[in-house]
Amino acid sequence: MTAVTIFGKGNMGQAIGDVFQQGGNQVTFIDQSDPVENLGELIVLAVPYSAALVIAKANQAKFAGKTVIDITNPLNFDTWDELVVPADSSAAAQIAKLLPESHVVKAFNTTFAATLKSRQVAGQQTTVMAASDSADAKAQLREALTDSGVAFVDAGKLKRARELESFGFLQMTLAAQEQIGWTGGFAVLK
Amino acid sequence: MTAVTIFGKGNMGQAIGDVFQQGGNQVTFIDQSDPVENLGELIVLAVPYSAALVIAKANQAKFAGKTVIDITNPLNFDTWDELVVPADSSAAAQIAKLLPESHVVKAFNTTFAATLKSRQVAGQQTTVMAASDSADAKAQLREALTDSGVAFVDAGKLKRARELESFGFLQMTLAAQEQIGWTGGFAVLK
Repeated sequence: MTAVTIFGKGNMGQAIGDVFQQGGNQVTFIDQSDPVENLGELIVLAVPYSAALVIAKANQAKFAGKTVIDITNPLNFDTWDELVVPADSSAAAQIAKLLPESHVVKAFNTTFAATLKSRQVAGQQTTVMAASDSADAKAQLREALTDSGVAFVDAGKLKRARELESFGFLQMTLAAQEQIGWTGGFAVLK
Repeated sequence: MTAVTIFGKGNMGQAIGDVFQQGGNQVTFIDQSDPVENLGELIVLAVPYSAALVIAKANQAKFAGKTVIDITNPLNFDTWDELVVPADSSAAAQIAKLLPESHVVKAFNTTFAATLKSRQVAGQQTTVMAASDSADAKAQLREALTDSGVAFVDAGKLKRARELESFGFLQMTLAAQEQIGWTGGFAVLK
């Protein structure tokens, strides 16, 4: 059992909470006006990218030694045509720079809220892909998801967050253009 | 019926040829030592990225007015940790620069040869995602694939080739690390 603290109670925060709860973990939420206290070992920033940066910057000491999961897709939502992070970097890399004493993991950015909730991408099991420079943090996440109903794939080092964010971005543009549904998308099949 | 000319007779070239043949198109191949003549309206560069650049540069006039499909995943195969194209660009964009009078389409880089051959990604129908600035070229490709056994998704403008190449790169690293099989991978599900 892992103590999980989720920042944000939006669609993604709630769906991720549901997944961790089924996995037998203890889940608490921190919403915008809540004090940042009683943090679990595993912290999920289920907020937009700009808010994730603010939260990371404000809580460097409180997040030290903990696993911090960045789920963001840093789209330019005015154009839907580019990301707001440098092309050779990623939101996760930018957040990791702000949290040098934490173990940052990129995960949950390639799964829509509906496919987390249902555990299915158009009928196939939903898979969470995770990238991190900390093998321990990825193992902790994998363990916490064991009985959650979603599959887990190790996507490599944190450098792969760039590709995971491209993957999430492409999936979102296809859904916005109704090429795929928000209950479908990219399934990871063995 | 579309006349399709495929450069390269490797696994990908053959699988793509098989798909177009089932689609009722006329397929011819051009191998390394063959003369570049009798080209179809639709040209597929089923060769590694470095060879695609050489072929594009050498055949600007012959490819003028035609649809040219770039299928490459421009990995640094020494490191398997990065692409060899600029981070804010793509192999397709680099090839398009060399072929200003052609209609360049990025496609077939997100499907492994085995999933094209079988038309299935671990049991789910294989989908070809295509990006191009030419709506006509994408329509031509979609039409040529209608009865081919693979599905088609319009991934947007050629700028999205960056995300398609990240997608292909990630998929290849997962297969190389045996997180997924070369007969599985990322399925596009509606």
